[in-house]
Amino acid sequence: MLPKGFYCGGIHSGIAKNKNKNDFALFFSDSPCTVAGMFTGSLVKSAPVLIDIDRIKKYRLFQAIVANSGCANACTGKQGKRDALIVCKEVAKHLKISDTDILAASTGVIGDFLPVDKMVKAVPKLVDTIKKKDELAAVTSIMTTDTYPKYISKKIKVSTGEIKIWACTKGAGMIHPNLQGLHATMLSFILTDAQLYQKQLQRVLEVAVRQSYNCISVDGDTSTNDTVLLMANGQSDTGKLDAKDLEIFQEALNEVTLKLAKMMASDGEGATRMIEIFVKNAKKREDAEKIASTIATSPLVKTAFFGSDANWGRILAALGRAGVKVNPDRVDIYIGDIMTAKDGMAVKFDEKKAKKILQQKECQITIDIKAGKQFAKYYTCDFSYDYVKINGSYRS
Amino acid sequence: MLPKGFYCGGIHSGIAKNKNKNDFALFFSDSPCTVAGMFTGSLVKSAPVLIDIDRIKKYRLFQAIVANSGCANACTGKQGKRDALIVCKEVAKHLKISDTDILAASTGVIGDFLPVDKMVKAVPKLVDTIKKKDELAAVTSIMTTDTYPKYISKKIKVSTGEIKIWACTKGAGMIHPNLQGLHATMLSFILTDAQLYQKQLQRVLEVAVRQSYNCISVDGDTSTNDTVLLMANGQSDTGKLDAKDLEIFQEALNEVTLKLAKMMASDGEGATRMIEIFVKNAKKREDAEKIASTIATSPLVKTAFFGSDANWGRILAALGRAGVKVNPDRVDIYIGDIMTAKDGMAVKFDEKKAKKILQQKECQITIDIKAGKQFAKYYTCDFSYDYVKINGSYRS
Repeated sequence: MLPKGFYCGGIHSGIAKNKNKNDFALFFSDSPCTVAGMFTGSLVKSAPVLIDIDRIKKYRLFQAIVANSGCANACTGKQGKRDALIVCKEVAKHLKISDTDILAASTGVIGDFLPVDKMVKAVPKLVDTIKKKDELAAVTSIMTTDTYPKYISKKIKVSTGEIKIWACTKGAGMIHPNLQGLHATMLSFILTDAQLYQKQLQRVLEVAVRQSYNCISVDGDTSTNDTVLLMANGQSDTGKLDAKDLEIFQEALNEVTLKLAKMMASDGEGATRMIEIFVKNAKKREDAEKIASTIATSPLVKTAFFGSDANWGRILAALGRAGVKVNPDRVDIYIGDIMTAKDGMAVKFDEKKAKKILQQKECQITIDIKAGKQFAKYYTCDFSYDYVKINGSYRS
Repeated sequence: MLPKGFYCGGIHSGIAKNKNKNDFALFFSDSPCTVAGMFTGSLVKSAPVLIDIDRIKKYRLFQAIVANSGCANACTGKQGKRDALIVCKEVAKHLKISDTDILAASTGVIGDFLPVDKMVKAVPKLVDTIKKKDELAAVTSIMTTDTYPKYISKKIKVSTGEIKIWACTKGAGMIHPNLQGLHATMLSFILTDAQLYQKQLQRVLEVAVRQSYNCISVDGDTSTNDTVLLMANGQSDTGKLDAKDLEIFQEALNEVTLKLAKMMASDGEGATRMIEIFVKNAKKREDAEKIASTIATSPLVKTAFFGSDANWGRILAALGRAGVKVNPDRVDIYIGDIMTAKDGMAVKFDEKKAKKILQQKECQITIDIKAGKQFAKYYTCDFSYDYVKINGSYRS
């Protein structure tokens, strides 16, 4: 259920070839919101990303997010920006708000222009539909190769009352995190009725993203369109949050984003399973993150997972090229709870049992560096025939 | 044909399960050679790599290379080194040379120990066979997932006479270059009867590798066992090479290694075609190399190639995350001679014609940065179902 004061909806506007596929979504708050945003770190940024970055710098409050799938509106130059602004303006007119109160997001094929006429024509219907608060319609509108819609909500009890968080996201390809920014063809919109200053909001979002969206990889590829937006309209009856309640909010946001991040990893293009890469006892958290990310993106590791092959040598080889100074002769590797390598060398283990663990829908690989106390967890998926199939013919 | 004074051979020693698969090779010069070497930059180095690095530092001249497939002898600790040294010693005994005159190389599964007894037993036969100079037998002995043996030879005319270069290599997975060192599960042995000092030899090898083996990628994964060795026994009648003749030798070596590198890229695991990524008009050569390498390893780009899909947006997206400061709004992209993007935006092009170009066994993608005069070429292959098949069940 949406937090107080929020509305949403989604329709088919004609971007998608399939008439049954929603492609145009709107999220709206009936009162102004503070907003925190994180965007792709790629040099190549889509028109809506450039517009959002600019608006969040310039303006303090927002009321709506308009989003579409089927067209990334990236590599479209000045016309791309003009197109996105026309759509925003039309939506603002029908919502009866200022057109700078709107943020935009797109996902889909790079290089195509938005079919502005179709979208403008669809705006009245889109705005009309949000009264119904049809979360599923909104979330399916931003899906591309996702196999199921991803959204969750959570109630949080703080000292002065109750707060709601609602969040959605879409995967499923061009998913790869980066520690400097947010990198992935992912859109995630998070709505809350909590009351938070913009700076607080930005800080809690960055903390949450570092341990969630920034810790997943599907294919190591980084998108031009990544957008995470957190909107807070303050309509809950709790008033401003004190330090302790803010901590409770942070934990809830961490939990919500981590759940969605894991969904994205397990629903990666062609994925048959999700694998948690747990690198522990590193000297620095950054070291653990770098090693986990390198293992999580290795095609050889990911195809071995697809084959349920306990090929720990490939894991150690990936660690070797991660660019982190560790002693490989101290590294232990576990598949589930089975030790497969000790001090960088083979140990005897039950291959059948290891295969069984790797055949599960979720499994954990632990890499013990034995050099310190820091750790990182990464979530990835296997590399299957279907990944190749999906991406060998994406545009057709 | 081998250069003067060189011998080689290969046999089945019992490492490979298939009795018809050669797995044990020997290269020998009947007089001492200067040797240049380049090895994996991975932190995790196989036993033979550690032995070779140590020996090349300590000793001046060598006479033989012993190599095996089927077992990488990596992540095998002290026993791994002991095992490799036992094999070297046995080969030296039968060749009647000092055992420090031998260099070693292995490729295959990580974590397994060498079957030393089998190999020692096979040494007399191996040494006996090299008289036949059976190049094919030697080269097939180091093959793993390669679909065909890769070796070439070349005669060079210098001012004082004729020199021969003979070179072989093996791919086909865990192939990814790195500019700091040499990264790939590749073995390459280059034999010449030229007369060169060790320092000269090392320099020409590094120049040649930078534009060949360091410019290919199959899967972005880096091996623990990469080994390139260049042996020069000076038996040609040319005497020492002057600066001009050295330049001729360099060019020939560049050509030989580039040819072998291209063979490796086109015979990458599961590959159906080879793609040349040509990044031009960059400010610095390093920039061009980084962009080319990022595009060449993008799973989304490589699966699009498999589908013969002229999806230039993925190429531009990969450029965007390459970590090089360029202006994406200035970038032009060509598939073959067809311009598909100009100044970072779509241009109209004949999709059918582009598809045809992408369906060829070899094609060139050109990325024009329009920022300077430097360029780099990278050689990669497409990402196919067979890549997943081969690597989902490599050990079984």
